[in-house]
Amino acid sequence: MDKFDLFSPLDYRYLSGGLRKRAEIYLSENARVHYQAKVEAALVRALSRQGVCSKKIALEVEKAAFNIRAEEVYAEEARIKHDVRALANVLRSKVSAQAKPFVHFSATSYDIVDTASAVRYKEAVLELVVPQLRRLLNIWIKIALREKKTLQIGRTHGQHAEPITFGFAMASHVNRLGKAISNMEYCAQKLEGKCSGAVGGYNASSILVKNPRKLEKDVMDELGLVSALHSTQIVPPESLLDLLHSTIEAFTVLANFSDDMRHLQRSEIAEIAESFGSDQVGSSTMPHKRNPINFENVKSLWKKFMPLMNTFYMDAISEHQRDLTNSASARFIPELFVALVVSSERLEKVCSNLVVDRAAMMANFDSSRESVVAEPLYLLLAKHGHTDAHEAVRQITLKAKEKGKTVFETASQTNGVMELIQKFSRPELELLKNPESYIGLCVEKTEEVCDYWKKRPK
Amino acid sequence: MDKFDLFSPLDYRYLSGGLRKRAEIYLSENARVHYQAKVEAALVRALSRQGVCSKKIALEVEKAAFNIRAEEVYAEEARIKHDVRALANVLRSKVSAQAKPFVHFSATSYDIVDTASAVRYKEAVLELVVPQLRRLLNIWIKIALREKKTLQIGRTHGQHAEPITFGFAMASHVNRLGKAISNMEYCAQKLEGKCSGAVGGYNASSILVKNPRKLEKDVMDELGLVSALHSTQIVPPESLLDLLHSTIEAFTVLANFSDDMRHLQRSEIAEIAESFGSDQVGSSTMPHKRNPINFENVKSLWKKFMPLMNTFYMDAISEHQRDLTNSASARFIPELFVALVVSSERLEKVCSNLVVDRAAMMANFDSSRESVVAEPLYLLLAKHGHTDAHEAVRQITLKAKEKGKTVFETASQTNGVMELIQKFSRPELELLKNPESYIGLCVEKTEEVCDYWKKRPK
Amino acid sequence: MDKFDLFSPLDYRYLSGGLRKRAEIYLSENARVHYQAKVEAALVRALSRQGVCSKKIALEVEKAAFNIRAEEVYAEEARIKHDVRALANVLRSKVSAQAKPFVHFSATSYDIVDTASAVRYKEAVLELVVPQLRRLLNIWIKIALREKKTLQIGRTHGQHAEPITFGFAMASHVNRLGKAISNMEYCAQKLEGKCSGAVGGYNASSILVKNPRKLEKDVMDELGLVSALHSTQIVPPESLLDLLHSTIEAFTVLANFSDDMRHLQRSEIAEIAESFGSDQVGSSTMPHKRNPINFENVKSLWKKFMPLMNTFYMDAISEHQRDLTNSASARFIPELFVALVVSSERLEKVCSNLVVDRAAMMANFDSSRESVVAEPLYLLLAKHGHTDAHEAVRQITLKAKEKGKTVFETASQTNGVMELIQKFSRPELELLKNPESYIGLCVEKTEEVCDYWKKRPK
Amino acid sequence: MDKFDLFSPLDYRYLSGGLRKRAEIYLSENARVHYQAKVEAALVRALSRQGVCSKKIALEVEKAAFNIRAEEVYAEEARIKHDVRALANVLRSKVSAQAKPFVHFSATSYDIVDTASAVRYKEAVLELVVPQLRRLLNIWIKIALREKKTLQIGRTHGQHAEPITFGFAMASHVNRLGKAISNMEYCAQKLEGKCSGAVGGYNASSILVKNPRKLEKDVMDELGLVSALHSTQIVPPESLLDLLHSTIEAFTVLANFSDDMRHLQRSEIAEIAESFGSDQVGSSTMPHKRNPINFENVKSLWKKFMPLMNTFYMDAISEHQRDLTNSASARFIPELFVALVVSSERLEKVCSNLVVDRAAMMANFDSSRESVVAEPLYLLLAKHGHTDAHEAVRQITLKAKEKGKTVFETASQTNGVMELIQKFSRPELELLKNPESYIGLCVEKTEEVCDYWKKRPK
Repeated sequence: MDKFDLFSPLDYRYLSGGLRKRAEIYLSENARVHYQAKVEAALVRALSRQGVCSKKIALEVEKAAFNIRAEEVYAEEARIKHDVRALANVLRSKVSAQAKPFVHFSATSYDIVDTASAVRYKEAVLELVVPQLRRLLNIWIKIALREKKTLQIGRTHGQHAEPITFGFAMASHVNRLGKAISNMEYCAQKLEGKCSGAVGGYNASSILVKNPRKLEKDVMDELGLVSALHSTQIVPPESLLDLLHSTIEAFTVLANFSDDMRHLQRSEIAEIAESFGSDQVGSSTMPHKRNPINFENVKSLWKKFMPLMNTFYMDAISEHQRDLTNSASARFIPELFVALVVSSERLEKVCSNLVVDRAAMMANFDSSRESVVAEPLYLLLAKHGHTDAHEAVRQITLKAKEKGKTVFETASQTNGVMELIQKFSRPELELLKNPESYIGLCVEKTEEVCDYWKKRPK
Repeated sequence: MDKFDLFSPLDYRYLSGGLRKRAEIYLSENARVHYQAKVEAALVRALSRQGVCSKKIALEVEKAAFNIRAEEVYAEEARIKHDVRALANVLRSKVSAQAKPFVHFSATSYDIVDTASAVRYKEAVLELVVPQLRRLLNIWIKIALREKKTLQIGRTHGQHAEPITFGFAMASHVNRLGKAISNMEYCAQKLEGKCSGAVGGYNASSILVKNPRKLEKDVMDELGLVSALHSTQIVPPESLLDLLHSTIEAFTVLANFSDDMRHLQRSEIAEIAESFGSDQVGSSTMPHKRNPINFENVKSLWKKFMPLMNTFYMDAISEHQRDLTNSASARFIPELFVALVVSSERLEKVCSNLVVDRAAMMANFDSSRESVVAEPLYLLLAKHGHTDAHEAVRQITLKAKEKGKTVFETASQTNGVMELIQKFSRPELELLKNPESYIGLCVEKTEEVCDYWKKRPK
Repeated sequence: MDKFDLFSPLDYRYLSGGLRKRAEIYLSENARVHYQAKVEAALVRALSRQGVCSKKIALEVEKAAFNIRAEEVYAEEARIKHDVRALANVLRSKVSAQAKPFVHFSATSYDIVDTASAVRYKEAVLELVVPQLRRLLNIWIKIALREKKTLQIGRTHGQHAEPITFGFAMASHVNRLGKAISNMEYCAQKLEGKCSGAVGGYNASSILVKNPRKLEKDVMDELGLVSALHSTQIVPPESLLDLLHSTIEAFTVLANFSDDMRHLQRSEIAEIAESFGSDQVGSSTMPHKRNPINFENVKSLWKKFMPLMNTFYMDAISEHQRDLTNSASARFIPELFVALVVSSERLEKVCSNLVVDRAAMMANFDSSRESVVAEPLYLLLAKHGHTDAHEAVRQITLKAKEKGKTVFETASQTNGVMELIQKFSRPELELLKNPESYIGLCVEKTEEVCDYWKKRPK
Repeated sequence: MDKFDLFSPLDYRYLSGGLRKRAEIYLSENARVHYQAKVEAALVRALSRQGVCSKKIALEVEKAAFNIRAEEVYAEEARIKHDVRALANVLRSKVSAQAKPFVHFSATSYDIVDTASAVRYKEAVLELVVPQLRRLLNIWIKIALREKKTLQIGRTHGQHAEPITFGFAMASHVNRLGKAISNMEYCAQKLEGKCSGAVGGYNASSILVKNPRKLEKDVMDELGLVSALHSTQIVPPESLLDLLHSTIEAFTVLANFSDDMRHLQRSEIAEIAESFGSDQVGSSTMPHKRNPINFENVKSLWKKFMPLMNTFYMDAISEHQRDLTNSASARFIPELFVALVVSSERLEKVCSNLVVDRAAMMANFDSSRESVVAEPLYLLLAKHGHTDAHEAVRQITLKAKEKGKTVFETASQTNGVMELIQKFSRPELELLKNPESYIGLCVEKTEEVCDYWKKRPK
């Protein structure tokens, strides 16, 4: 088997050794089968608690479930054309005659499938995705704190606006990613399972055990899940839907960060750069090129995976007690988590060596030092009683540009304005002369935000 | 102005009198301007609390803000090409010279725009959308309880599966809508505002007031919002994004319900029907037609609005301290809420007169009464020790079909099976003969679900 | 390497032996590299035609290009972090010192990447996808012709409308798939390549060859492509975008067909069924179940892949002479073609053994035989001079239903109507008595449509 | 009626006087009704040609159809709850008793609705949308030709690459828009209509006219449409789907252009600017701001409307002979065309006064003049026999940067390279010293592209 005969870039390209191994545990097809077997085992344990079968049988099934691999199940499925029945058959083939009847006993396929997905995605999120995102978050926090006083011109509409610090800009990403992680954790905790049979009415379990709802609860307790208040053949889609939304939301934060960095790496701006290996080639024809390829990659993966939300909404509609038109599509869900951890790990690497050019930041600020003055000037004029300060300063900036003078100079020679400037306090005048100090609470806010998300309990 | 010269079906077609009036309060362009003026007033009140201006001035601005209408603002915008500055100018034109400087004082446009959107959508959701959805929920609860014992064949893959009750089927929609409503309320409560200036660093307010963060908090308190922990020129998009997701999620529940009803109204199934006016025409050429036009309409509106989630994700990416490429698109957000209340009201009307044909439900069940027996038979055989019961019953159903006999009959004549059947308890045998009793906990679950969502505090 | 450690269902699940082999040729990562090497070879051949290098060198490069595999290129890429330069390096390592300078000579990476994608997708569509879709089309044509006279009740809104034939219903799918195939072929033929260098201005080739545009044209001629009239670093996205749209369009036809079949397989309708293997299990708990799993699967894959169109539109936006944010996402394009051929092959198998239950079709028609009469009755009344025939018949159908009589009977006893009925011609009366003959041109149309798409030249 | 009580920004905000008037003719609700009445009239004319009714009756209906307005139809619809029957009733009320029976005679609603949509969208595209896009195209052509020699640094990955001219960059947009327009025209011409009755089998028309297919063809001929080869109750969706795709494709070209311009207007780049009114306000708080609001607006509208393609694909799936779940959603289709003409007109205005700062373009080029040399140097070294030129120049650029020397200088002092440089021809050396001449065929290509799309026949 040559991995380059495969079709998915996730399978042949984007996962490096360590991350691949960690991701396989939750997100490969073997993992799918493994978690389903785990649910089958939990079911027999719960049955034994109700006295339906012995503890010994439960242990026997658990042991059989532990080592099951996709390959065996697929072989059986090839024969009978039903994946979950195939799993049950394989399990049954591994246990004693006494145990056989209790495998999958009272369950319908989706008791297993949906419950297994809930455990699997819960663990994937809490043990794989969130820890990976946290590593990135921590690097961002480190950068934000380190650069909390690094002056940068704030940009709105791509235009120089008012000054901030680069740390403060990073704090925006910190805050958004922090929230997105919290959201993901919250949604993962809410994932629901079910054990209510073929149409959700506990039809089968009602004739087999004393307390079907207790049986369901016991299975969920074994697995660390909550039961759906109502289910049909399937778990109501909303709990998973919320998790998937929160996942795309987190991805969107990464994409926004990547866009910002791409633009800050533009030749004319050049405040930021991906570090570059000494053997690395930037272009096959332009030997001098240094491209933001990792930021581009993350944005690109986001474009690929974001529209999946439409698939998820469509899949949340299932006719009557369920149709199966969400089965194949749902098999691709793990790819979303994989793409997110791949992107997060990539950014983690890039950000660990992010080149921050403070001199370039200062130079860019300097080029707008003049016009930055416009806002505080307008506000101070208003504060000191000008009744149409915004319009006055708008005129002054136009005039200053036209005459090639500074805004402050021009203002100081404008009737109706110069009189008020004379009333300005010393710190106010100082500010107009040193607009680099016009950064408000950027430093304090950066500290506050980083502090908040650092302390945030797991 | 002829409303049929308009382009949006929401404007010329889908909103009836009462609902239109209620929706205009929150979701029209006048509402947008009204809420923005409200935020401007809250800002001046907060400024007065910090002693920046007098309470009298705050009251004056508040009064001016109260009656502002979009028309005036648009007229000013036509002149200066900036909508929020236009609003500020109109406000300023309505107050005394002393008050003028304090209008919009220290604020940037998006302090107003984003904060106003947060209040507006919060109130629209809590006062318009959720109450409308609750009315629908209550009708569904009523139907579910009324039909909790109405036998219906459960359907999976469009195939008859095991019996449920129609009330139990309704309880699924009740549960999902109940959760979706809770989600919307939760998200609406979390909506964030901001008052941190042009690049989020409190640059302006820092030079104008003693405690800029207090100023921000005061504005939010006035409006019943929380401040974003960090903002740029704009509020971090996630709080609104979550609300929009929860809105589409609720819409999806309505769409799923509509699909189910459409299919139950199929000529061959005919368990459900929209009631039909005596003058109503079903088809322009087939005078006998009775079509599920309202269910179709809701599904269709869902198809139109669901993909908007992609717009919202794209809009959550904004370069640096913000670009403006989410401005025009965000103006269409109210349409989503409008479409949802329109759909909800429509379903409310249809469900108030929903035709439930219990005889048809029974007849459909009867046609599968035979095969329904397969599941309990397999389970009881397993329970009584058959080691390959599923396969045995699969063979029996094939044979029964082939020979034109009942499953139970066939089973009773099958070696290895008939012996076990003789061990069945009386209730077990009874069940196989009266499969209509094979409904598990459908009745109890219906009651539990309806109870839960009825008691759920506002 | 265990294939069940993979993440993509396309890689571990959905491709069976024969189809996998055929798909790998065009759509695997090895294929990507193979086609890129082919373009590199075509470039050197074109260079030799301009006398830049010898024919011998061109042959040498061609030979080296022929056997290149992804594995070698990835190994080199791991070192230098640039995939196309890696390819060039590997090629260079396989040729003589004299040949080395002419490998990739004058080209930029995307001259190779975009041109290779164009050839690859063109051949994949024309040699793999379209032939597969044609096989399906031919089966549909066979069914349509076989069933051209099989009476079926037409359904609109899920309600019985007027009669058609099942062949006529199939002809709808035939026509739509036929057109979609034509569209795909048309778009594949239009795919454009480029050889205009790093920013599209032929900067490099202008200083290296006499006629850069001739060089580009020669490369494209070698590969059977057309040159873009204008390119930047990349080919204008529209030619590929059109192909991708046509691909999703074809997929949509398959999804619609699958939906129709799913519903015709509903227990209450049962006109159609997937054939079922003798060992096949329908449900893990309901041994009697026969589910439309293949139709469900196709619909589900459509839901997964359709929203990709949004990715493609986003990718069509590339800043200035290109950004790279479409690189990773574009690597997933082959998956769309794979999913479509998988779905098509699946339907091909199912349709080859499609169970058509003519008796059930007749029975369903019979249940509406009465109301079918309403349309021709209304029309004939209008034809014979009734001035409000639609309303009259609408009243008659309501009355007939209420009284439990037939529509014709009721009409024959209604004042203002019965007089006109007496004027009806014998064939007109016959029609009202035998509504199964009310099928218009269904048979002729079926033949016409099938004929058209059968004759359609390859 | 206060237009600011409306919900759609298209209705209350984005359409200015002249464009609104032009758009109403095709895209308002009155237009919808008008076109449907037109089809009803065409049907009666076609009936008269078959001798079913007199020419006088046809003329009478045509006259009645001409002046019909949505208001009357909606009033009747309020009574009978069916929009097309309402139209027929209103028409009938306006004609003589003899004419009444022939209104809508033999037709089903969607014979009218789908056919009317086809004519309407065809005319909207050919008479409104395409002419508007052409005006924009012509302005772009003018700019491209005017700036064909204006040196600009080409940018890939946001990084300076090799030089082009600004006209050449514009030619890329010209070419893409030209093709998109052609595509739209082609798709509009292919739009199909139908007149085959309630289930597509000509059931009704077969009993009313001699040649039903001729009747259908006559109706289409009257309207300038082609008949679908096969239809059900509805026209096969693909012809409209293709048009909608081509519309979004054209929109995407506008969005890409807008993105490019936004970035070229960045403070640090400043090569381009929207012109600015003398009273115009850039920011409510920063009086100096000049934002690319129009480019932002177009991008934003694209983000709003692009995802609609998903709606259209979903709507292309309709169960059996049709379900109605595409009815409400299809009513919003005109909005897409409106949004595109709004965006196009906006860009037309901005581009008519686009500020092109040639000095800034030159300055930006100059900042990279050094590294631009890398590509031709590498190529010329290869040409003159260097066997590893790319790697050599990569090393030279790193060294040059490190030592603060020029690339050419550094190369001239590098062993193994300097020897080859001495072999360079005079023009080759000239190029390395004057990299501004390294623009390949940019001027010629610009002329070729503009010429091609100017001459392109309507």
